[in-house]
Amino acid sequence: MPFPETIEKIVSLAKRHGFVFQSSEIYGGAGSVWDYGPLGVELKRNVKDRWWNAMVRTRDDIEGLDAAILMHPRVWEASGHVAGFTDPLVDCKTCKGRFRADKLVDAQCHQKPSRHPGDPGTPCVLTEPRQFNLMFKTFMGPVEESAAVVYLRPETAQGIYVNFLNVQQSSRQKIPFGIAQVGKAFRNEITPGNFIFRTREFEQMEMQFFVEPGEDMKWFEYWKAQRMEWHEALGLDPARLEFHQHTKTELAHYARAAFDIQFDFGGALGSQEIEGIHNRGDFDLTQHQTFSGKRLEYFDQPNNRRFVPYVVETSVGADRVTLALLVNAYREETVAGEEEGRTVLALHPAIAPIKAGVFALVKKDGMPEFAHKLADDLRRRFPVYYDESGSIGRRYRRQDEVGTPYCFTIDGQTMTDSTVTIRGRDDLKQVRIAADQVASRLHELLAKDRPHARIEDLL
Amino acid sequence: MPFPETIEKIVSLAKRHGFVFQSSEIYGGAGSVWDYGPLGVELKRNVKDRWWNAMVRTRDDIEGLDAAILMHPRVWEASGHVAGFTDPLVDCKTCKGRFRADKLVDAQCHQKPSRHPGDPGTPCVLTEPRQFNLMFKTFMGPVEESAAVVYLRPETAQGIYVNFLNVQQSSRQKIPFGIAQVGKAFRNEITPGNFIFRTREFEQMEMQFFVEPGEDMKWFEYWKAQRMEWHEALGLDPARLEFHQHTKTELAHYARAAFDIQFDFGGALGSQEIEGIHNRGDFDLTQHQTFSGKRLEYFDQPNNRRFVPYVVETSVGADRVTLALLVNAYREETVAGEEEGRTVLALHPAIAPIKAGVFALVKKDGMPEFAHKLADDLRRRFPVYYDESGSIGRRYRRQDEVGTPYCFTIDGQTMTDSTVTIRGRDDLKQVRIAADQVASRLHELLAKDRPHARIEDLL
Repeated sequence: MPFPETIEKIVSLAKRHGFVFQSSEIYGGAGSVWDYGPLGVELKRNVKDRWWNAMVRTRDDIEGLDAAILMHPRVWEASGHVAGFTDPLVDCKTCKGRFRADKLVDAQCHQKPSRHPGDPGTPCVLTEPRQFNLMFKTFMGPVEESAAVVYLRPETAQGIYVNFLNVQQSSRQKIPFGIAQVGKAFRNEITPGNFIFRTREFEQMEMQFFVEPGEDMKWFEYWKAQRMEWHEALGLDPARLEFHQHTKTELAHYARAAFDIQFDFGGALGSQEIEGIHNRGDFDLTQHQTFSGKRLEYFDQPNNRRFVPYVVETSVGADRVTLALLVNAYREETVAGEEEGRTVLALHPAIAPIKAGVFALVKKDGMPEFAHKLADDLRRRFPVYYDESGSIGRRYRRQDEVGTPYCFTIDGQTMTDSTVTIRGRDDLKQVRIAADQVASRLHELLAKDRPHARIEDLL
Repeated sequence: MPFPETIEKIVSLAKRHGFVFQSSEIYGGAGSVWDYGPLGVELKRNVKDRWWNAMVRTRDDIEGLDAAILMHPRVWEASGHVAGFTDPLVDCKTCKGRFRADKLVDAQCHQKPSRHPGDPGTPCVLTEPRQFNLMFKTFMGPVEESAAVVYLRPETAQGIYVNFLNVQQSSRQKIPFGIAQVGKAFRNEITPGNFIFRTREFEQMEMQFFVEPGEDMKWFEYWKAQRMEWHEALGLDPARLEFHQHTKTELAHYARAAFDIQFDFGGALGSQEIEGIHNRGDFDLTQHQTFSGKRLEYFDQPNNRRFVPYVVETSVGADRVTLALLVNAYREETVAGEEEGRTVLALHPAIAPIKAGVFALVKKDGMPEFAHKLADDLRRRFPVYYDESGSIGRRYRRQDEVGTPYCFTIDGQTMTDSTVTIRGRDDLKQVRIAADQVASRLHELLAKDRPHARIEDLL
């Protein structure tokens, strides 16, 4: 399987099959914002649901939350975002471009004929760096006055911290316990890019785990291992996953320890963060205590004492992990005995947007009616795609390209013995099974929760 | 069951049990923005998932979409929102309050001692009305310059229209078909209120159905009936649901027909829109064609012709329907043979945040261990709540208050014959079943998809 040199093929496949479209494309697009199409929305929903199941529903020590995007502006003073969530920018007087002062080596002028600093051509003339805040600012209430300035949250975490006591008391949780949230966040990035890797509007899946001080490094190690396992169970190639430890210079001033989980996207993007695990100590709760004047202490009843818990955070980008899953799954293969190769998205069946293709071999002899009925039956439990147009090989190729794990074909024999063929996306094997067993066998295959789709698993 | 006079009791229950908290409460709250707590996030997720299943996953004629909140600003010129999505506001020179000119009769000064017009006291001195746009405005890119003005979408529908051809072509759908989306929208309301009924940040579940002109009224009637059925199947009292037809003066200039589905919230709020079904004709697609210069026509292959489809829209507020479900489910009841009454949320089991309570009658004789094991087993498939503290009656009451349909209690007899009691929330009956049958019986009860939780359904 050739390693994809670039993500251009993914971008093209994503548009062609309705995974991801450029936002407002008919208007020339919105700056680095993307829309998820019919297959993309299912893929990303499956990723988010799997995270929610693993982190909230199947655990008794994590509670869910859905805090609003708009929060009180003081939240972002307490968190440090108003003062410190900035990039240093320089303007180029030659090309009028604007660049991050700390990333000049990667900068590329967007206006010809000047070039970025160091290249041949008309040189850039750069201003001194100035700090620009990355939060989107808006105004609540009918007039644009400074009293009503609010921000689009740049991270979901603060919604969890300010609700710490509300959640703890209403759920009657005892420390250690966590609060988890999936939601949109917004950053006015100067240099977004690489498709859905770095966008101005994105979705986070964050969990904050509240522990007793002194227990924090134990839980930090626990969550590092848990989160890496989660990515591996989704089928991300372990050889492309690695931990990256933040060095002292990378570490945020409040962080006691931090590791990224990186995935190797290949090509120019290379190995990049898809999740961060951070030991944030008591920084956040203490800041909110100071700024709000409200106590955010946990009451430890058995020992009759109060303390501000430490926080271990796991923060994963839903769009980034979706892109990693697409890149990881993308293969161009030759097929034995066939002239044309195939493109296949070898997605874990649990996150594949369509679980089964249902085909009538030819449009006659009752096959379409039989196939329609089977598809309608299956659709009550699984997302399925019915197809009767084009050659059967072409229909298989189409489902391979969108990652559909299994295909069922109704042919002439079906009309005599009520069996259908089932084909596995990954081993390309086909066997016949009874038509009235299709739903239960499909359920059985999906329940195995394996990252591949092979007919061997049936046998 | 007494009809709730107000929603204050719901607000109080919602905070106490972790359904809904005021956003940024420790900072005094953000203006009419709310956060969903551990039980609220599950309730609302269940409502949204049920809508998605009914509208997308179980149908072959509707595709899903997840368009971004930030769109190209021209979208809102084409849609008419830049010019027309305004409220007329007046300022009061006496109390400095700001009011909607068309709702002066409902206005209440927020500063004493002046009163709203007409009341005794210092009279308001009102300015002439001015138009204020209700869209939240922000700036994309690092400088606040007019070229980079973008808006937070005030509705999700436009994300569907601009993607009409991308979705249709990638999914190979033929007209009639629909595109559905769940997502946040934002309106800078002057007078938000009534808890989560009217908020500045809210979530919509919208579906746009594209049809051949001339077929539109047939589909309009179809969707009116479908959507009313959906609300009724969720258990909303049919006596509190009604259609409200938009009269000619209420009808938007582009709408060919419009009905609201209203729910009677009781008290001062009364009967209010929770969903709108609109025949929008070809207004939206035609506007986007004009403003983008791109064709948005459907190609009707069999007849070799192109046309701009008509659109039938169904638009439901996820927060409003969640509030309706809470109000509808809230009961204060006397219980035969007991002194204290109970408060119960008689939610449809499919949307109840917790499906089962699991209790050890007393904290000894192996009962907690048995109950913990049962709860852990169930939790792999269902959200459950384990409780061993306080009297058993108190534990039942607590689950009643949050709408948990079934409770399982481990008692002395369990330790000898491995049976447990199952109790139904709505009929309060209890029967004993084998402990190893709990998961399958719970599954069976939930699969019945009935709006109530009675033990009779087991028999």
